[in-house]
Amino acid sequence: MRPAEQTDLIWGRHPVDEALRSGRAVKRLYLARGLRPAEGLAQTLALAQERGVIIEEMDRSHLDLLTGTSRHQGIAARVSPLPPADVQDILDLAARRQEPPLILALDSVQDPQNLGTLLRTAEAVGAHGVILPKHRAAGITGAVVKASAGAAQWLTVAEVTNLVRALRELKEKGVWVMGLDMEGTIAYDEVDASLPLVLVVGSESRGLGRLVREQCDFVARLPMRGHVESLNAAVAGSIVLYQLWRQRDRGQLPINGKSGEQPGAD
Amino acid sequence: MRPAEQTDLIWGRHPVDEALRSGRAVKRLYLARGLRPAEGLAQTLALAQERGVIIEEMDRSHLDLLTGTSRHQGIAARVSPLPPADVQDILDLAARRQEPPLILALDSVQDPQNLGTLLRTAEAVGAHGVILPKHRAAGITGAVVKASAGAAQWLTVAEVTNLVRALRELKEKGVWVMGLDMEGTIAYDEVDASLPLVLVVGSESRGLGRLVREQCDFVARLPMRGHVESLNAAVAGSIVLYQLWRQRDRGQLPINGKSGEQPGAD
Repeated sequence: MRPAEQTDLIWGRHPVDEALRSGRAVKRLYLARGLRPAEGLAQTLALAQERGVIIEEMDRSHLDLLTGTSRHQGIAARVSPLPPADVQDILDLAARRQEPPLILALDSVQDPQNLGTLLRTAEAVGAHGVILPKHRAAGITGAVVKASAGAAQWLTVAEVTNLVRALRELKEKGVWVMGLDMEGTIAYDEVDASLPLVLVVGSESRGLGRLVREQCDFVARLPMRGHVESLNAAVAGSIVLYQLWRQRDRGQLPINGKSGEQPGAD
Repeated sequence: MRPAEQTDLIWGRHPVDEALRSGRAVKRLYLARGLRPAEGLAQTLALAQERGVIIEEMDRSHLDLLTGTSRHQGIAARVSPLPPADVQDILDLAARRQEPPLILALDSVQDPQNLGTLLRTAEAVGAHGVILPKHRAAGITGAVVKASAGAAQWLTVAEVTNLVRALRELKEKGVWVMGLDMEGTIAYDEVDASLPLVLVVGSESRGLGRLVREQCDFVARLPMRGHVESLNAAVAGSIVLYQLWRQRDRGQLPINGKSGEQPGAD
């Protein structure tokens, strides 16, 4: 397994700090010899010592090899796997917070950078969880954790063997399935965000798969007025997540919409 | 000069197609030998032939060397530089469209991927132009054009020697300078988007520079409710650009705001 595919090794200042703060079990911390002091680094190291984590110094070139990248900022950690979660855990979290579920599901997002970016935004807006298909999306590797600035470690992530089945389960429990696609029939900001929602973002190149699309109660699009016909998948998903959360937060009704009634839905 | 730093070489199916469609002078087209037919490729080649562009076939490995990447999708082109533009060109475009200016300015965004993503979103929402500091931001290289999916070629991009001076010039001409920063005093969706606006996005690591911040009429922030304290700069800028455009498009008033009156401004 290439270093970039390992899920028990993370790197970068934010990810390591977030791992310690989130209470994730950190087994060992690796530090580049002669690392310059940087903002927050002393606190991270103090926290590691408090937790009794073994700190191992090594040459920077050795750390490059260990992590498979030079973008580790001089710090890495061996961590325990994130606790496995399932769809019910996500619904339970929403129930505990007494909020209608806001869930992100990814249909084969392959690029670790895009996956990390989407996890970072999902965490920022307080989404209750993220659903990933086990075999068709990038897993939560060190590269993904780095791209998420550590956010992956705070999120309830359910890796499911069958995304279609997971969406069907959510529908049975009253959650609306909202696809996001260039071919969508409603503008993303016409959706009633007060509904229990799972937002399904498709792959970078092919959008939503046919079987996944068939599970959608409605498919939303991002209107565009330029020449270019699509946005980066991570940017598109982030824009929609923010809109849904802000609309909820402000208690606003969507444009043309009535709370509890979904325009364009069957 | 490394291939990635060249500004007259572009690669990728979208960028090359957009270059031909936008009327940018394409001097020569490079094609990987044995390239599999892909959606849109035939049209791109037909358009190139119609324009009398010389098409040169080469081994894929040669194309890797030429572009400095393996992510060229088998196609590259030698193009003329984008026509130079200045701040006045951007204002003129807004005047021709009879719209209040909506401009994006980048204060030292270094990552070509982030710069490309921001250009792609700016083009998608119909921004009138983008202002880049010549020496402190990534230029419009082939890697940036690729990351923008070709959008860079449709945009009026003004590369200025002094961003502070450019912002001052815009203020003199009635444009409000809106910073974006984690320390902002107004939520981004409380801003009155009907104003003439230039949105200034700071660098990935340090936010807005002090001198640039001093030019801001107000600084907006993206509210967050999670543990992680910031978003990717390209995602943050894209979310705000979309919000501003959609608010304009729908003729909506901002929350807590009155058209033409700026909350939080001096």
